[in-house]
Amino acid sequence: MSDFFKGIDPLRFDPDAEGLAFRHYDPDEEVMGKRLEDHLRFAVAYWHSFAWPGGDPFGGQTFDRPWFGDDMAAARLKAEVAFEMFEILNVPFFCWHDHDIRPEGASFAESKRNFDEIIDLFEQKMETSKTRLLWGTANLFSHRRFMSGASTNPDPDVFAWSAATIKTCLDATHRLNGENYVLWGGREGYETLLNTDLGREMEQMGRMLSMVVDYKHKIGFKGQILIEPKPQEPTKHQYDYDVATVYGFLQRFGLEKEVKVNIEQGHAILAGHSFEHELALARELGILGSIDMNRNDYQSGWDTDQFPNNVPEVALAYYEVLKAGGFETGGTNFDAKLRRQSLDPEDLIAAHAGAMDICARGLKAAAAMLKDGGLERARAERYAGWDTPEAQALLTSDLASIAARVEKGGIDPQPRSGRQERLENLVNRFV
Amino acid sequence: MSDFFKGIDPLRFDPDAEGLAFRHYDPDEEVMGKRLEDHLRFAVAYWHSFAWPGGDPFGGQTFDRPWFGDDMAAARLKAEVAFEMFEILNVPFFCWHDHDIRPEGASFAESKRNFDEIIDLFEQKMETSKTRLLWGTANLFSHRRFMSGASTNPDPDVFAWSAATIKTCLDATHRLNGENYVLWGGREGYETLLNTDLGREMEQMGRMLSMVVDYKHKIGFKGQILIEPKPQEPTKHQYDYDVATVYGFLQRFGLEKEVKVNIEQGHAILAGHSFEHELALARELGILGSIDMNRNDYQSGWDTDQFPNNVPEVALAYYEVLKAGGFETGGTNFDAKLRRQSLDPEDLIAAHAGAMDICARGLKAAAAMLKDGGLERARAERYAGWDTPEAQALLTSDLASIAARVEKGGIDPQPRSGRQERLENLVNRFV
Amino acid sequence: MSDFFKGIDPLRFDPDAEGLAFRHYDPDEEVMGKRLEDHLRFAVAYWHSFAWPGGDPFGGQTFDRPWFGDDMAAARLKAEVAFEMFEILNVPFFCWHDHDIRPEGASFAESKRNFDEIIDLFEQKMETSKTRLLWGTANLFSHRRFMSGASTNPDPDVFAWSAATIKTCLDATHRLNGENYVLWGGREGYETLLNTDLGREMEQMGRMLSMVVDYKHKIGFKGQILIEPKPQEPTKHQYDYDVATVYGFLQRFGLEKEVKVNIEQGHAILAGHSFEHELALARELGILGSIDMNRNDYQSGWDTDQFPNNVPEVALAYYEVLKAGGFETGGTNFDAKLRRQSLDPEDLIAAHAGAMDICARGLKAAAAMLKDGGLERARAERYAGWDTPEAQALLTSDLASIAARVEKGGIDPQPRSGRQERLENLVNRFV
Amino acid sequence: MSDFFKGIDPLRFDPDAEGLAFRHYDPDEEVMGKRLEDHLRFAVAYWHSFAWPGGDPFGGQTFDRPWFGDDMAAARLKAEVAFEMFEILNVPFFCWHDHDIRPEGASFAESKRNFDEIIDLFEQKMETSKTRLLWGTANLFSHRRFMSGASTNPDPDVFAWSAATIKTCLDATHRLNGENYVLWGGREGYETLLNTDLGREMEQMGRMLSMVVDYKHKIGFKGQILIEPKPQEPTKHQYDYDVATVYGFLQRFGLEKEVKVNIEQGHAILAGHSFEHELALARELGILGSIDMNRNDYQSGWDTDQFPNNVPEVALAYYEVLKAGGFETGGTNFDAKLRRQSLDPEDLIAAHAGAMDICARGLKAAAAMLKDGGLERARAERYAGWDTPEAQALLTSDLASIAARVEKGGIDPQPRSGRQERLENLVNRFV
Repeated sequence: MSDFFKGIDPLRFDPDAEGLAFRHYDPDEEVMGKRLEDHLRFAVAYWHSFAWPGGDPFGGQTFDRPWFGDDMAAARLKAEVAFEMFEILNVPFFCWHDHDIRPEGASFAESKRNFDEIIDLFEQKMETSKTRLLWGTANLFSHRRFMSGASTNPDPDVFAWSAATIKTCLDATHRLNGENYVLWGGREGYETLLNTDLGREMEQMGRMLSMVVDYKHKIGFKGQILIEPKPQEPTKHQYDYDVATVYGFLQRFGLEKEVKVNIEQGHAILAGHSFEHELALARELGILGSIDMNRNDYQSGWDTDQFPNNVPEVALAYYEVLKAGGFETGGTNFDAKLRRQSLDPEDLIAAHAGAMDICARGLKAAAAMLKDGGLERARAERYAGWDTPEAQALLTSDLASIAARVEKGGIDPQPRSGRQERLENLVNRFV
Repeated sequence: MSDFFKGIDPLRFDPDAEGLAFRHYDPDEEVMGKRLEDHLRFAVAYWHSFAWPGGDPFGGQTFDRPWFGDDMAAARLKAEVAFEMFEILNVPFFCWHDHDIRPEGASFAESKRNFDEIIDLFEQKMETSKTRLLWGTANLFSHRRFMSGASTNPDPDVFAWSAATIKTCLDATHRLNGENYVLWGGREGYETLLNTDLGREMEQMGRMLSMVVDYKHKIGFKGQILIEPKPQEPTKHQYDYDVATVYGFLQRFGLEKEVKVNIEQGHAILAGHSFEHELALARELGILGSIDMNRNDYQSGWDTDQFPNNVPEVALAYYEVLKAGGFETGGTNFDAKLRRQSLDPEDLIAAHAGAMDICARGLKAAAAMLKDGGLERARAERYAGWDTPEAQALLTSDLASIAARVEKGGIDPQPRSGRQERLENLVNRFV
Repeated sequence: MSDFFKGIDPLRFDPDAEGLAFRHYDPDEEVMGKRLEDHLRFAVAYWHSFAWPGGDPFGGQTFDRPWFGDDMAAARLKAEVAFEMFEILNVPFFCWHDHDIRPEGASFAESKRNFDEIIDLFEQKMETSKTRLLWGTANLFSHRRFMSGASTNPDPDVFAWSAATIKTCLDATHRLNGENYVLWGGREGYETLLNTDLGREMEQMGRMLSMVVDYKHKIGFKGQILIEPKPQEPTKHQYDYDVATVYGFLQRFGLEKEVKVNIEQGHAILAGHSFEHELALARELGILGSIDMNRNDYQSGWDTDQFPNNVPEVALAYYEVLKAGGFETGGTNFDAKLRRQSLDPEDLIAAHAGAMDICARGLKAAAAMLKDGGLERARAERYAGWDTPEAQALLTSDLASIAARVEKGGIDPQPRSGRQERLENLVNRFV
Repeated sequence: MSDFFKGIDPLRFDPDAEGLAFRHYDPDEEVMGKRLEDHLRFAVAYWHSFAWPGGDPFGGQTFDRPWFGDDMAAARLKAEVAFEMFEILNVPFFCWHDHDIRPEGASFAESKRNFDEIIDLFEQKMETSKTRLLWGTANLFSHRRFMSGASTNPDPDVFAWSAATIKTCLDATHRLNGENYVLWGGREGYETLLNTDLGREMEQMGRMLSMVVDYKHKIGFKGQILIEPKPQEPTKHQYDYDVATVYGFLQRFGLEKEVKVNIEQGHAILAGHSFEHELALARELGILGSIDMNRNDYQSGWDTDQFPNNVPEVALAYYEVLKAGGFETGGTNFDAKLRRQSLDPEDLIAAHAGAMDICARGLKAAAAMLKDGGLERARAERYAGWDTPEAQALLTSDLASIAARVEKGGIDPQPRSGRQERLENLVNRFV
């Protein structure tokens, strides 16, 4: 045992606790016939919790972690502490990038050796841990070789390097029985159109994605391939802008049945959407996979990746998830980082515990809203006019026939209240 | 002749003029083997120029136009003045919504009669005018019957009313030999997800669009059907969010070969994109149709619809248009309105004349950049690594083969400068 | 009695009600030794509730109110319905602009006569109503005469007209025992710097404000003069941008002891601030007067003026108010309007009732946080280093002396956790 | 001579040059009776050009500079290269933070020794260089000790450390005959109100600023003290939000005659203003000091610090500067960094050269507009109504007297066109 979390015991569910505990998240609580743990499927993100040094564009490292360093001993210690935290939090899942877990080597092969050693260690730890892998992913954006993109790079060698890296990470995800594999194209975009061939780059990206899908089938990986949309940052424009954009991209390459999306609250906000919009849209398009739960500061124009803390908002998000039937392979990954002034080990535990409580409150409220049924009844009633055969026939009619009928007169549609405030009041009975 | 523009003569091209004139726009100037007029294909928008009263959310009418009123006499006077302005500006095109040109009647049939009378008048005027119809469109958002959407309305009667209205407008566009027909879904979206069935509404919208395409073919309309993307406003979310979203939508309904986009600068900005991004993306996707040229205030969060006035920005937009081969059926529609303090008839002429000059400067700069070739050479050079057969083979290879090669070593991609500032300097030689 | 609200009884406090009722707002509940009604001091805004027709920039009137019209009979009916609503909601206050309550006359004098008649009617109604006047204000932005500003207008006649209008409204506010008088400079700003003399306009605005303060004292009005900051919309830039800007302006004209601010949630958001920021800043500067409670859609770039519905956010706002000692002359004015699809009379009642419940929950949560004391203890502890005389002496020392001490060595400040997530968790125990 | 810029000769003015040169910036060109160099007073920013490694929040170092490292030899090489670049660019000024020029030491004293050695080196270099110091400043935001602020820190030791650092930097600025001393409060703000005592922190900040002013006078520094406003980033809220906020702050501490502002384009944009707004406002308030010339991407929500490249925008900025009489102690500092893909030494030179040309074009256009006089004539005419004694008397009148006159009738102000589009056209004759 490391002593990083010394003095912090595994958290228990205790609504009246004074110190660190879950006040709302009882993993065994039954909601809609399923345990809360099985609904929420929480995951800890390795990068923010263990690899981020606390820097921002105007200042460097603030965190002082015993495992910071660039060698395998540090990487092993980091893994030790990670699994200790998983146990303290009793989380069923975690997620990683290759870059988070191993030191970069002098060559691809050395990086891979480092990586594989840590995957071995993970495999060994997971034998006794309850914590499983929600998803793995490759970091194809931090190293300078990726500065102009990964699959969309003007240099085919970077495309090759990226492909090889994805293979390595997908293999490891498969080995660890990961439930999904994620692609976030942090540099798949551009800084300026002046030096960019949009069409070519999107074509390259489509080819890479097709190869990933092919390889998944080849090795028998049963997990879900997920794309994580984000509109910008670090690039000025990122090709996987939002759910709708990703859907169009998937259709173009015939992959809309193969790939789903991992939707992040902060990315939705940056794209000008609410989180629940992106979730609802993905559900309707049949590509809702998993979520990165976090929170963007509404007054900041960049990705703040804060832990969620607003129950009414989180409830609306889980409402859309529950309407989709809940997560299958997906889960609730906390793609959230401590504020850089939150230096203490206790901050790391408290931030996750608070977020887990918020999510539990949100999901329980969402389930109560669904059980109450008022929202869905109001929605059904609003569209009830479409339930008649005559109305349905409109949809397969033609302009001339419809116009003939309208011109004849006798139709004068009268607006009906959208009842927005009453529906908002209804939601507020539950949150 | 009305006396609205009394004292304002048709504008001539005169670089050294003191008063109202074109200083840069000479319709007959040859650029890349085509007359400027045939490149730019300017259109005046009927709604902003003749129907908008100068109101905003905090104040009412400021303009005092002799044709304001709600009867046919007013509508006829408005048409007179409009064609006088087309002549003063020597514009080859104009555009309208039904709602701009006729008074609303007490019934659909009466509205249609009013509309048809004005279309008759237009037809008659166009016999002697050079000004043709760039596009027609139906206003399915201003009347309260459309408050919850047109094709996406919860009330099938509104769907029917909308279909009949589109038919009427498409017929008239066809009769006037319009080059395009545009659909802007100003209320095709939602105010709150709480009362909205996203999936159903998008399905209704897709059906309507299919009927429009069918009807176009049925009547032999050769013009292009165009969708105009906008992310929001008036609604919180509009389904035709941006070019990428529209493309995904078109694919979903199998219409990506039938329908193109009409891209507006201000809408691009509101969606978090640059104008040139939307143009370049539409070109690469094969759906670039036409443009609504205007300018959004970068410090305002709503659609300000100002006349364009920044040559460097406009040049980058036309650069993308020229790279697409220029407009076919499309053109440069000024979807721009006077500031509400710009009360004088002269303001209306000056605003258009200034904008036409800006566009002429922009297009000529874009043509010069293309002729210089420096930008395209730099772009080609940047991707030159992909020109080898080995590189191209990568795109049809598979992850395992590529990984095998990378793991063997010998590949260590080295970043090369993206040269952004040098390319920006190059652009600045021309603008 | 009008029959507009037929079938809607005065709302009662009933946590378990099925229909319209207050579920959380019991006016008589004691919180921190004061009745909830006396804490919250709710006000209905005449303009949004009774004068707004449901239009937006892309569509006209959707509401169908029997009092819409432009004559005194309509204005009287409107007043009847307003007081009926005050009674249904049991609100202690209301607010108006002159423009909301009377038809515009053909001359200043006629407008004033219309206005005075309605003020007479209000006076009479208030004899038997519990509802008092929170504040009056002049609408100096809707009529076209104000299109270029009121006190900042390039035309001195508009300055004079504005001064006379303010006098009229201030007199009436005084007569009705209003507790405050508000100035919102909706057009005190500019559309373009190109035609604007910033310095001159701000000087004019300062002079007007000084006259208002002088006149207040002259007539013995004991209420508070309030400025309502807003950064933009309708103008591109509004001089009363935010609290900090207003404070600088007040200092410049020596008015910082005479004038306070009326802070609106939506305006704070548009200025890039959180609501609680503006409240805290005003409190620290000694100018916190009153609040306009509403909610801006975080994904819309304009003022959406929705009813508040997020308890955690509202709680943080009232926390700042309670830390300031609560309202003195101020109160909670719902500067919020129905969505334009919310057509029914019941929507108007439900929207207010829901908002009042949200505010009651927020204020009670804020009071509980204050009583708990955890936040304030953490804050005190964070700055505890400053409690020593040595630390305090630093603030009145000089650079050279301090530097001498630091250069000598022995000082090496060590960061301490800011504990943000733990404090957010603490807040979430109460909301 | 280092060989970093090998092959790059000092740039000459040559409008027709093919390679690196100034195409528009001829330092000796006379404009309004002053040399361009003396108007523009260009400065190179040490931090972006020599200290920034090319990182962003999602990736690390991309630049590969021979002077990167953490020892004095590296710092000396960096200084060599810097002065070589000043010579190539023929710039009259440069600017630094302490942190840019020296390695951090293990103690304050060691850092100061390192710093002083480099200042010695600068002094020596400046004996033969034409390049002088526009301003010095202290970096009180990058090191983790400043994570919770400098003068606003909850820890008085950090306040002391900051005071000592400012003294050191101000002394050095004085020694090098710097023309200004700048304070940018990068961490003077907060991440969350929950742990922040706004009032106390602003008081601390005011005290520090007073000490800086006192010390300046004590040592006889004749340069100007400047505050650089920024609304946010890295913090959620920065106290020196914008020009108006800083002005209010200065007044509060009685420093509005002692301190001016250094206005940055990108910071203006982030605060919701145009650059020219901030310049005009500062001029009218008498606190316009200097500018940080750069450009923010309008589609990115963070500080992108790009080199300026839009002549029409830059022209409007210099128009405000020229209206203020031009720079006194101030100048045009390029607070701009290369894109992280711009790896080559040539990129660094080209970026500056392009920016200098843009500024030269902007300033010459601004001067031409002033000489033409059209804008100022239109402005004067717009406010001409205020030129009469009667109009002026209004400003010192009182509400009652004005109202009496208005009520009598005979006044009916008629709106006049604001002519915005015509003024924009006028500007476009010059840019």
